[in-house]
Amino acid sequence: MSHQADLEVIRRGAHELIVEADLVRKLAKGKPLRVKAGFDPTAPDLHLGHTVVLNKMRQFQELGHHVMFLIGDFTGMIGDPSGRNATRPPLTPEQIAENAETYKAQVFKVLDADRTEVVFNSTWCNQLGASGMIRLAGTSTVARMLERDDFSKRFAEQRPISIHEFLYPLMQGYDSVAMKADVELGGTDQKFNLLVGRELQKHYGQEPQVILTMPLLEGLDGVNKMSKSLGNYVGIHDPAEEMFGKLMSVSDELMWRYVELLSFESLDTIAGWKRSVAEGQNPRDIKVRFAQEIIARFHDRAAAARALEEFEARFRHGEIPHDLPEQVIEVPAEGGAIGQVLKSSGVCPSASEAFRMIEQGGVKVNGEKVADKGLRLPAGSTYVLQVGKRKFARVSLRVVP
Amino acid sequence: MSHQADLEVIRRGAHELIVEADLVRKLAKGKPLRVKAGFDPTAPDLHLGHTVVLNKMRQFQELGHHVMFLIGDFTGMIGDPSGRNATRPPLTPEQIAENAETYKAQVFKVLDADRTEVVFNSTWCNQLGASGMIRLAGTSTVARMLERDDFSKRFAEQRPISIHEFLYPLMQGYDSVAMKADVELGGTDQKFNLLVGRELQKHYGQEPQVILTMPLLEGLDGVNKMSKSLGNYVGIHDPAEEMFGKLMSVSDELMWRYVELLSFESLDTIAGWKRSVAEGQNPRDIKVRFAQEIIARFHDRAAAARALEEFEARFRHGEIPHDLPEQVIEVPAEGGAIGQVLKSSGVCPSASEAFRMIEQGGVKVNGEKVADKGLRLPAGSTYVLQVGKRKFARVSLRVVP
Repeated sequence: MSHQADLEVIRRGAHELIVEADLVRKLAKGKPLRVKAGFDPTAPDLHLGHTVVLNKMRQFQELGHHVMFLIGDFTGMIGDPSGRNATRPPLTPEQIAENAETYKAQVFKVLDADRTEVVFNSTWCNQLGASGMIRLAGTSTVARMLERDDFSKRFAEQRPISIHEFLYPLMQGYDSVAMKADVELGGTDQKFNLLVGRELQKHYGQEPQVILTMPLLEGLDGVNKMSKSLGNYVGIHDPAEEMFGKLMSVSDELMWRYVELLSFESLDTIAGWKRSVAEGQNPRDIKVRFAQEIIARFHDRAAAARALEEFEARFRHGEIPHDLPEQVIEVPAEGGAIGQVLKSSGVCPSASEAFRMIEQGGVKVNGEKVADKGLRLPAGSTYVLQVGKRKFARVSLRVVP
Repeated sequence: MSHQADLEVIRRGAHELIVEADLVRKLAKGKPLRVKAGFDPTAPDLHLGHTVVLNKMRQFQELGHHVMFLIGDFTGMIGDPSGRNATRPPLTPEQIAENAETYKAQVFKVLDADRTEVVFNSTWCNQLGASGMIRLAGTSTVARMLERDDFSKRFAEQRPISIHEFLYPLMQGYDSVAMKADVELGGTDQKFNLLVGRELQKHYGQEPQVILTMPLLEGLDGVNKMSKSLGNYVGIHDPAEEMFGKLMSVSDELMWRYVELLSFESLDTIAGWKRSVAEGQNPRDIKVRFAQEIIARFHDRAAAARALEEFEARFRHGEIPHDLPEQVIEVPAEGGAIGQVLKSSGVCPSASEAFRMIEQGGVKVNGEKVADKGLRLPAGSTYVLQVGKRKFARVSLRVVP
């Protein structure tokens, strides 16, 4: 089968493909597949974690398929009617329109705008009416809904589940019916909802969609999922130098994970990189190249080149050794106190000695002189510490679990 | 309080009044209360059991309140979307309109047509739209719905509950909001749904309705609830003589129950009857009077008089003793075989002797000669058996439990 190569691209980095045989059959028809991915209509401020699904959409585009970017404005305009979730106030049509524009500005840095259909589910959901909603509710059972992990957990713990929460997976599934989706993409946390789409399509006499779940990207700490609230993220609006510094700070292991899920380079190219590193190339070179790609995507090539120059200048200026081993240091949630970090990393014998060195102007973090003894270094990043001319350490700060 | 007499009328025969203090407060305002009772839009073919709630509506009318007869056409037009309940196919608007006319012809034999507002819930339910439906669903929780007896039972037994079934009590509650109901009437089996109405009204900033549940009327057998499928009913379209015969067949105890729930006579009048019987009057006289009232209501006074005449003529003609004791005989669901019934009641020594008497033309049931040895007497009724000139029995046939 000539679809073997396509399948490999589709499977790249994916967590689960249900059902592969269905996908093979759909591909065999030789027609572009209708690929759906849904997004919240809340104000988007994307980080790299969000782009994992977008990248998969892009791969489908590159394979010649029809990609549909669905904005769930219908439920967004309802918010949380039970009032339990204060973070879900209802959005006005104006807010939704504004958010959609912001989305487009961001996602078309990954997707090909000319080959992306942007759709809003209010188009078909409003037409359902109250009676259509009841008919939709009649397609599933309470027991089936309680199979969803978070529902069963809350039910067991006697925490309230509003009845409208049972309707949302059905609405999402109905989107697949209305869109005649062949494939739906989503995070692993969306698996249940994507499966409901399969069931509903069968119910409405359609061939069920294939579902492809993508892993939730780890943050810079390599442990928790990337998230703004954990501070372990790379925002796609981050300045180029900050992006560069953050991406250079990740562990070598995490780097390969990022490359698999975030790089547009082919699987062949990446296999080549891995071979080179196995044969002795410094993984730092790959990291630089990957960081350049990401910055070029969200800023431009010139900004990527400048960020690299500045980064290297700082290292040259401070004569920082390139092959410093990375130490992991556990710090409290509010970050690591500079004296404590200097002591733990071994570059100062004590915190009081560290403070003395700071007073003398002999301490640098990432090449910049430290003047404040009260400084706290945020967790979730890696820092190069320098004391005097010759003492160096590379430390990755993690929050005490 | 001058409302004490009204309260007594309202409480007559009722199972539960929630909350009486609320009702007293509402009555004290001195304005006509808005009284709601909902009915299925399926083809109505009412029996006396259905008229218990209608009678209560009539009592409210007589007390000067505003009575609303709600036809649940909205959900009727949806039917059972899960397809599990074959007896609930969706109805067309034409069928609903036709059923509504049939309803009116029947219920206005009890209610005062000029003082009854007939409303259809499609009026406000269609306006809800899909988003209004979701907001409505957001007002309650899964745990709350599972408190309903039949839901909790099915859930425990792992029998499926369609999600739309959770929406129906909410729709019914929303009817109370839209109708601004002060009081809702229903059978005891409706208690949960009526309470949802109270909750929703509070949610929408209304004073919660008072709920008044009426017992489910026992059938002629005095055991099971009156139902067409059990054959223990008096249909309001039954011919006058049949109605008369059926009502005369009920036990003395059940008679008082029927009088309480079905007679339009005042509580004072009924108390007078009870005193007379206690002082030696034959309860049969009350039964005759009550049966006359019911026939006059659903036919007319002349028909009631004729039915009485014919009934008495049959007894006179056959010289049937008036004080025959009633024997209960258990029979299969398909009814009692005549030979067996004659034997069991003691009027024939054996079934073969019974057949011989039938061949000779010596057997009568309710005064009519029996010619068919294959006759089966339906269960749920009482019969006077006669063999020859002098042997009599009064038997009530019940289905073997």
